[in-house]
This record gives sequence, C-alpha cells and structure tokens, in this order.
Amino acid sequence: MKLRVFVTLKPGVLDPQGEAIRHALSALGFEGVNGVRQGKVIELDLTEGDTDKANEQARAMCDRLLANTVIESYRIEPA
Amino acid sequence: MKLRVFVTLKPGVLDPQGEAIRHALSALGFEGVNGVRQGKVIELDLTEGDTDKANEQARAMCDRLLANTVIESYRIEPA
Repeated sequence: MKLRVFVTLKPGVLDPQGEAIRHALSALGFEGVNGVRQGKVIELDLTEGDTDKANEQARAMCDRLLANTVIESYRIEPA
Repeated sequence: MKLRVFVTLKPGVLDPQGEAIRHALSALGFEGVNGVRQGKVIELDLTEGDTDKANEQARAMCDRLLANTVIESYRIEPA
C-alpha cells in the first residue's frame, strides 16, 4: 500500500527556508509574494495491505523519524 | 490567494534522500518498507486574487526557482 505523508512546520514556527525562497523570488522579480512555507512530502510504499495497519505503521514512522513533532505536524493520506 | 506546490522527483530518477530514509526506518526496526520517495510541498501566499493569474505566477515561480524541471515535476493546487 502507498501512503503519502505531509510534514509541515507548526503555525508560528519560523521557516528560514520559506523566507529564503521568498527573498529569492523577489530577487527574480516576482512581486506580491506575502509568504512562503516549505514542508516535506514523503511517499511510503509499504508491504502492509490493511489500511488501518498501514496507517498505524506510518504514524509510528512519523513519530520516530519522519517528523520532529516538537515543531512539525504531519498528515497521512493514501497516495 | 494561497496555493500549494508539490515538487517531486520524476519517476526513474534516483532518490538518495528516500533511500536514506528507507535505511533509517529499517535500522529502527520498521519492516515491510518497499520504497520511500521524498519531495517538497511549498505553500505560497500570493497577493493576486484571480485564480488563473495566481496559478500562472506559481507556474512561473516553479519553472524559474522552485523546481528543477530536468529531474523534478510539480503540481499546483489551491491551499
């Protein structure tokens, strides 16, 4: 089963990468960019076929490795 | 208007980050992980209110900065 994990910074957490992109865009002449936030999208191809079990595995992977749950939140959806 | 840009490696392009995650997951004891692919999700907060124009701006930003279109493809959707 394929699952897609979205890992994004929690609201209020400073996003230096997003800021760097915003500056780069304005340096390239793009106007009207109020804000940029960057996160990760991780596609997991799991052997587990049962949806609930696969989601449970993915949550455990997020909690242990894929997301820093102090500053990031994650969302899992079917790929 | 807020748009979300998904930047992922094109199929067939080697994903060293994905491989590193896969190895780390198995080192942590997670079994049944056939493959991992990592990409970026970039949330753009644009002043432009017109949907078509905002999407056009986002495409231009992707082509010039956000995606390396040689090895990456991108998808834009409303945030």
